[in-house]
Amino acid sequence: MADTWLTSLITDTPQAGFELAITLSRRGVKYTQPDPAVLKKLRPEYAEDAEALTAASQVIAINFQTIAAANNYWRK
Amino acid sequence: MADTWLTSLITDTPQAGFELAITLSRRGVKYTQPDPAVLKKLRPEYAEDAEALTAASQVIAINFQTIAAANNYWRK
Amino acid sequence: MADTWLTSLITDTPQAGFELAITLSRRGVKYTQPDPAVLKKLRPEYAEDAEALTAASQVIAINFQTIAAANNYWRK
Amino acid sequence: MADTWLTSLITDTPQAGFELAITLSRRGVKYTQPDPAVLKKLRPEYAEDAEALTAASQVIAINFQTIAAANNYWRK
Amino acid sequence: MADTWLTSLITDTPQAGFELAITLSRRGVKYTQPDPAVLKKLRPEYAEDAEALTAASQVIAINFQTIAAANNYWRK
Amino acid sequence: MADTWLTSLITDTPQAGFELAITLSRRGVKYTQPDPAVLKKLRPEYAEDAEALTAASQVIAINFQTIAAANNYWRK
Repeated sequence: MADTWLTSLITDTPQAGFELAITLSRRGVKYTQPDPAVLKKLRPEYAEDAEALTAASQVIAINFQTIAAANNYWRK
Repeated sequence: MADTWLTSLITDTPQAGFELAITLSRRGVKYTQPDPAVLKKLRPEYAEDAEALTAASQVIAINFQTIAAANNYWRK
Repeated sequence: MADTWLTSLITDTPQAGFELAITLSRRGVKYTQPDPAVLKKLRPEYAEDAEALTAASQVIAINFQTIAAANNYWRK
Repeated sequence: MADTWLTSLITDTPQAGFELAITLSRRGVKYTQPDPAVLKKLRPEYAEDAEALTAASQVIAINFQTIAAANNYWRK
Repeated sequence: MADTWLTSLITDTPQAGFELAITLSRRGVKYTQPDPAVLKKLRPEYAEDAEALTAASQVIAINFQTIAAANNYWRK
Repeated sequence: MADTWLTSLITDTPQAGFELAITLSRRGVKYTQPDPAVLKKLRPEYAEDAEALTAASQVIAINFQTIAAANNYWRK
């Protein structure tokens, strides 16, 4: 991918960090399947499947661990 | 999502931290499938499936790692 | 859940820590499916399934990571 | 379980630590299914299934992370 | 494998680190199945399967944890 | 297992560390299924299955986390 999409892991708030974790999780999918048409076709398939949604939430949780550590857990 | 739902990872007790881990796990699902009607339809499906419950418990465990570290494990 | 079940991650021994990890893993299931009748019905289903037992052991392992770190690995 | 089986995470060598990780992984299964007859019956089922063996290796890897950290990675 | 493909975990940017995590994830597959013809045959199979894409994203997330820690999270 | 196969987690390079992570992952399988004839029979089964290859790569990634931390990420 030629575009720049990730220049820092630092976010202002935990919620912004959680949303960045979602971005990382989706990018992990996109690097493996870059064709937007295929991704669009697959979306309904897993967005209505309980197991797939739990699996998606797990990838977000793993990426959130990384981002939370990077931000020193937003401790004040 | 426009609403603010996560302003801090700090909690008073480990139990409150565990419950926040549950919130993060559910939010991970909601960001992927925001339609409450679909989520409601899926709920009985996985809440009565042993494997799906174990998978849900695993996501909670991963998020609890993050929150426990953020709180320095509530050591006194 | 209104009851208090987790006031500290500190345990006297690694074994007590491992058993606390089991408690956390089961609580993760209970928060998702609070009905004891459903849980009881599901129990034989996964307690006699090799894959489900491995998955349960994995959740325990993840929670044990958290508890072991909290206890500074019970180093003397 | 009334018996004492885990009094320390410290081992002399990384290999002994890896073997302790295997013990933890099996104990995680045993706490969930304590009946040795059932466990014996399930054993051939997963010991000849490639996916189940990979899953078992994963639980060992997670427990080894904990034990390796406890031993400060056996650095000299 | 005789070739040298990994001499450092340090990258200039988080994005380069994420891309290195993808490399590690693919190498993990290649060490297990070194035959490029088999890998090529399998590719369409999982690149159009939602669960497989989530699983691939999870391996990337785990490797990114390692690389992000190695780079001290690219904090300035 | 009577043989000594793991005396240190320290390696000269990240690549040697990654290869050690593969060794750990395979040993995790071997401790569970020590019969080489069974392992040989299972090999083609999972080496041509995309999901199984991703799962194998995940175990390697988890073990690589441990080894990379042991080596302080090969920082100079």
